[in-house]
Amino acid sequence: MTYSVAVSGASGYAGGEILRILAAHPDVEIRTVTAHSNAGQPLIQHQPHLRSLRHLTLRETTPEVLAGHDIVFLALPHGQSGQFTDALAGTPLVIDAGADHRLESVTDWNRFYGGEFHDPWAYGVPELLVDGVKQRARLVGATRIAAPGCNASTVSLSLAPGVAAGVIDAGDIVTVLAVGPSGAGKSLKTNLLASEILGSANPYAVGGTHRHIPEIRQALTAAGAGDGIRISFTPVLVPMARGILATSTAPIARGATDAQIRAAWEDAYGDETFVQLLAPGEFPRTADVLGANTALMGLAIDRDADRVVVVTAVDNLVKGTAGAAVQSMNIALGLPEGTALSTDGVSP
Amino acid sequence: MTYSVAVSGASGYAGGEILRILAAHPDVEIRTVTAHSNAGQPLIQHQPHLRSLRHLTLRETTPEVLAGHDIVFLALPHGQSGQFTDALAGTPLVIDAGADHRLESVTDWNRFYGGEFHDPWAYGVPELLVDGVKQRARLVGATRIAAPGCNASTVSLSLAPGVAAGVIDAGDIVTVLAVGPSGAGKSLKTNLLASEILGSANPYAVGGTHRHIPEIRQALTAAGAGDGIRISFTPVLVPMARGILATSTAPIARGATDAQIRAAWEDAYGDETFVQLLAPGEFPRTADVLGANTALMGLAIDRDADRVVVVTAVDNLVKGTAGAAVQSMNIALGLPEGTALSTDGVSP
Amino acid sequence: MTYSVAVSGASGYAGGEILRILAAHPDVEIRTVTAHSNAGQPLIQHQPHLRSLRHLTLRETTPEVLAGHDIVFLALPHGQSGQFTDALAGTPLVIDAGADHRLESVTDWNRFYGGEFHDPWAYGVPELLVDGVKQRARLVGATRIAAPGCNASTVSLSLAPGVAAGVIDAGDIVTVLAVGPSGAGKSLKTNLLASEILGSANPYAVGGTHRHIPEIRQALTAAGAGDGIRISFTPVLVPMARGILATSTAPIARGATDAQIRAAWEDAYGDETFVQLLAPGEFPRTADVLGANTALMGLAIDRDADRVVVVTAVDNLVKGTAGAAVQSMNIALGLPEGTALSTDGVSP
Amino acid sequence: MTYSVAVSGASGYAGGEILRILAAHPDVEIRTVTAHSNAGQPLIQHQPHLRSLRHLTLRETTPEVLAGHDIVFLALPHGQSGQFTDALAGTPLVIDAGADHRLESVTDWNRFYGGEFHDPWAYGVPELLVDGVKQRARLVGATRIAAPGCNASTVSLSLAPGVAAGVIDAGDIVTVLAVGPSGAGKSLKTNLLASEILGSANPYAVGGTHRHIPEIRQALTAAGAGDGIRISFTPVLVPMARGILATSTAPIARGATDAQIRAAWEDAYGDETFVQLLAPGEFPRTADVLGANTALMGLAIDRDADRVVVVTAVDNLVKGTAGAAVQSMNIALGLPEGTALSTDGVSP
Repeated sequence: MTYSVAVSGASGYAGGEILRILAAHPDVEIRTVTAHSNAGQPLIQHQPHLRSLRHLTLRETTPEVLAGHDIVFLALPHGQSGQFTDALAGTPLVIDAGADHRLESVTDWNRFYGGEFHDPWAYGVPELLVDGVKQRARLVGATRIAAPGCNASTVSLSLAPGVAAGVIDAGDIVTVLAVGPSGAGKSLKTNLLASEILGSANPYAVGGTHRHIPEIRQALTAAGAGDGIRISFTPVLVPMARGILATSTAPIARGATDAQIRAAWEDAYGDETFVQLLAPGEFPRTADVLGANTALMGLAIDRDADRVVVVTAVDNLVKGTAGAAVQSMNIALGLPEGTALSTDGVSP
Repeated sequence: MTYSVAVSGASGYAGGEILRILAAHPDVEIRTVTAHSNAGQPLIQHQPHLRSLRHLTLRETTPEVLAGHDIVFLALPHGQSGQFTDALAGTPLVIDAGADHRLESVTDWNRFYGGEFHDPWAYGVPELLVDGVKQRARLVGATRIAAPGCNASTVSLSLAPGVAAGVIDAGDIVTVLAVGPSGAGKSLKTNLLASEILGSANPYAVGGTHRHIPEIRQALTAAGAGDGIRISFTPVLVPMARGILATSTAPIARGATDAQIRAAWEDAYGDETFVQLLAPGEFPRTADVLGANTALMGLAIDRDADRVVVVTAVDNLVKGTAGAAVQSMNIALGLPEGTALSTDGVSP
Repeated sequence: MTYSVAVSGASGYAGGEILRILAAHPDVEIRTVTAHSNAGQPLIQHQPHLRSLRHLTLRETTPEVLAGHDIVFLALPHGQSGQFTDALAGTPLVIDAGADHRLESVTDWNRFYGGEFHDPWAYGVPELLVDGVKQRARLVGATRIAAPGCNASTVSLSLAPGVAAGVIDAGDIVTVLAVGPSGAGKSLKTNLLASEILGSANPYAVGGTHRHIPEIRQALTAAGAGDGIRISFTPVLVPMARGILATSTAPIARGATDAQIRAAWEDAYGDETFVQLLAPGEFPRTADVLGANTALMGLAIDRDADRVVVVTAVDNLVKGTAGAAVQSMNIALGLPEGTALSTDGVSP
Repeated sequence: MTYSVAVSGASGYAGGEILRILAAHPDVEIRTVTAHSNAGQPLIQHQPHLRSLRHLTLRETTPEVLAGHDIVFLALPHGQSGQFTDALAGTPLVIDAGADHRLESVTDWNRFYGGEFHDPWAYGVPELLVDGVKQRARLVGATRIAAPGCNASTVSLSLAPGVAAGVIDAGDIVTVLAVGPSGAGKSLKTNLLASEILGSANPYAVGGTHRHIPEIRQALTAAGAGDGIRISFTPVLVPMARGILATSTAPIARGATDAQIRAAWEDAYGDETFVQLLAPGEFPRTADVLGANTALMGLAIDRDADRVVVVTAVDNLVKGTAGAAVQSMNIALGLPEGTALSTDGVSP
């Protein structure tokens, strides 16, 4: 069977990446692409790298245009997906790349986002440990899926094994992320201009204000951390178009041995295709996962600092967003999980 | 009076930056430049940006060549400066940009460097709080100065005010640094090739092995932390030639108020020219200090995470190395401290 | 049928890219990977992005190790492929990514390369016009294929249509290329260090000395230029890991109309998948072809300058090298030409 | 005497660079900075690298605010400087960094810019050969100066010596420039976003449409080319914040010897401080002139191509704009020409 697909927000970065991956997917037909101000223009004008889709024209992002497909991807700014929920009631599978359906807590939503709250959907991070089982189980047959925040899923995947196994203390997590500007979207903001970012490392959202913090807290709570989670979270824009390198640390739980610690991560990810733990002493680079759906992870146990250090590299647009969405789609539809997804990065 | 100067390691990045700054210094004459394998060649062949010094030829790095100057800068690989100590006994001022004269602890030296231990020299970070007074006082009239490690001084300056004031707990410091590859020198290593670094964020020395860790511990101990210091330190190479953006966090000391915390940094740096604290809510970018001797610092107090977050930007080759060396030289000689040093970065 | 494959030079950039593409090729089995100084080590240690091939170990590059496969790829430094010619006499298909089998002229070889001359093999640029037909025809059933020089094929593809149609004058070609450093390989040279390339544009081989010049001359002669070719060729290293943006200009042939000029390129490439001509007024970016086998081309007719300007973007490691090699392999073996090759770039 | 200065457009890139240079100028006092939409805000908010000017507040860009200074710098978008001409009639020295007062030809102005034409002012490229003498002579005592277009002056300086000496043919110039995005200003355009430029080479204004073409034609005509000038001009955005690397070629004039050709450039620039010709076989990199007022030039004579190739590196914001403006100001005022200007780049 071939599934018909519509992708909204198709002129943006997240939408473009969903299209890039789906263009090579044997089981889907990209029937409709929509945009807001760019509606009516050829897709290729806004995504000149998607040569295989140069026959497509952007249509308006309306419920009418999106309805009638087997699958709809929403790649819209935060707060705009929710309005389509009702209109797409008849759509078998809807996957939201925005934040509208990620958070379970109204309080968190109001504090970090604001605007109307929407029900949470199945969280699109299949490898995440939730109450001792992988999130994958909840995605089988799902009809509504929330793709994760790229920074959030990177940090959550980094620490969930240690939290679930009780070998780290979630009460004093510190994470600092080097991130590429594509995660901020194709927005016309001075701080996203090339001249501002080339040759510079630029922090933002310092001091506990980043919107992905409650998403991490939610995921790690579900992984077993209980209520005592505290996270210091600092993202730093660096001059690479894509990529997240998250350095996440947490105190070693009292009495945890090195073997127990390492086993927590090996047990969690030893069988996974798209989350790979590197050998002791090895750490990943974002170039290694460019264009790939792989989260590469290195683990250090620093007894002097009394902390576990997990360094994880992902491509924010793939494993962080569009790849997670397609992987989740594959699971939901019962297709081979890795269809159209690569583990190999484009490097150098 | 004009001081005659010799700079060893003049074909490398640190040596080149010392020369760039000294070339504009009205009180010194760059008389001699030396190198190892490149001796005999024109300086301009290895430092094609130093147009004003194209009359100089690299000589051998030997005690004989270096002797007889008023000031000698050593910009040599670690472990190579010590051999010149005796030979330069008659030199009025020697400034070492290497690590040989930074550490006070033989144990630390043996663990992180190895080889022969050398006596520590006056540490070239004038603004650092040491036992309640600025390190500047110890540099006045100094004859032997150790320029700091670039990452070490950045982190030490970031946290010393909080440590000295007792408003943070030095027992669980976590610092992650985005750094440019010039800090690693002009070494021919695969991991320093452009193809490996462009478009990628690459961690190294993860898990407590970086050589700057004992230097930070030493500085913060002197600032007032006592013996209980623990530091999780992770550097990440990012695609910018220069710059360090250090995100340093430490637990808020019990009972410390926001006002007390902020006052600690304001009191420490309010009168400083080359260490500047930004207004609340503002954080620095490395581009803002490119080519400048300025450490720009932003401070956040994250009560959710119960941590102070200090983000500091420096140019690793200027305030991190060569600028610190020249600033210290100025102080030692009784010259105006900012001679030949700029506070303004070259941006964008 | 599944073809067994050996790839030599597997720890380098060209070898790595051949492996990345072949890893997704349904008709081949990567059985053997070889290297020189890195033999005996896991492939993943040198190609950490090739997660799907982490079971492979590098073996010695010897005739014995390479023999016995259906297909052998040679990705060796120039001058090293020729030694394997005799030893691989029994191998059904050998594809050389080096220069040893590209040039037909001993004189050119001696002037630009030197060392032993080897017979030219079928040139691996299927879309190139040769005596009025596409080079593709000569690749069908070929058993020995020379993948092109990345800069050479980019310029040759840019201008061959105009030369073949007689609408441009090949007697005064000027081409300037912005190129990423990966084209220079994983060589430990100071000028390839990240600190030297980040934030800078660096010319090299200025003034007619680049080795790809005779290769272009050979291709354009075959396209119909006759003997009067002159090429001013200047490559400029720019801070991107991959990519070539070639700006190639040639005088408009006397009397050629705009319509005739544009038709020359449209006729040549209108039916091609991997060489695509953009609409008038549109020009390509290298990001649009990153990781893709596509050569994207824009054409301008500048009557003030009396020149045609062709701007072409390729990924030097894909369409410039490894993609060209696999595309040629597919043709030689009678497989669908685009197997394992993407037209869509990874962008942003 | 200290000259009072006002800088309009002070929140932009060109204005910021004028300020950076003037901040270190001993003979001027920066009294007023103005902006358009940012008026009323602290300068430091828009130029966070100008630490020494953090006491300044942006005022409205009006004739009243600008009047009353000894010197006014206009760093406004094209077409906006002209309106101040009358209002600043009483200002002793006005320097325009925009295009409004560069072109002598109304026809060129109408074709490439449009809007009201304004009289040309003294062209701010002191080293340019004009009718056999340096432009410097026309700047002595000048009261109205037009700083050059960054690309235009780079190409004009590159070729004027050959044109003036009659050793190259200006009838078929081809120039291709690798340029950083800061030349395009702090404009909010999608094609200037970091995600669009990082890792990519992006051509623009291909085919003879760039506005700097008539400016080059005007300069080279004045240098001696007569009316027969033709220029193929292609700029390519590359991922570096600053810098222009211009590769300019022209046919060798019939009969010109290598010695005559080289002598043309040596004679022109041998005594210049800020335009330096490199030794034969050497070519410049943009990093070598970052932050410096130097144009570094390499010359090749390619007899196979029958062309002279001149590769010139400048910092577009310094020698290309703000440095040229200050250098011209120094000359106009009778100050030492190099005051506040460095020949040494900030590298790596």
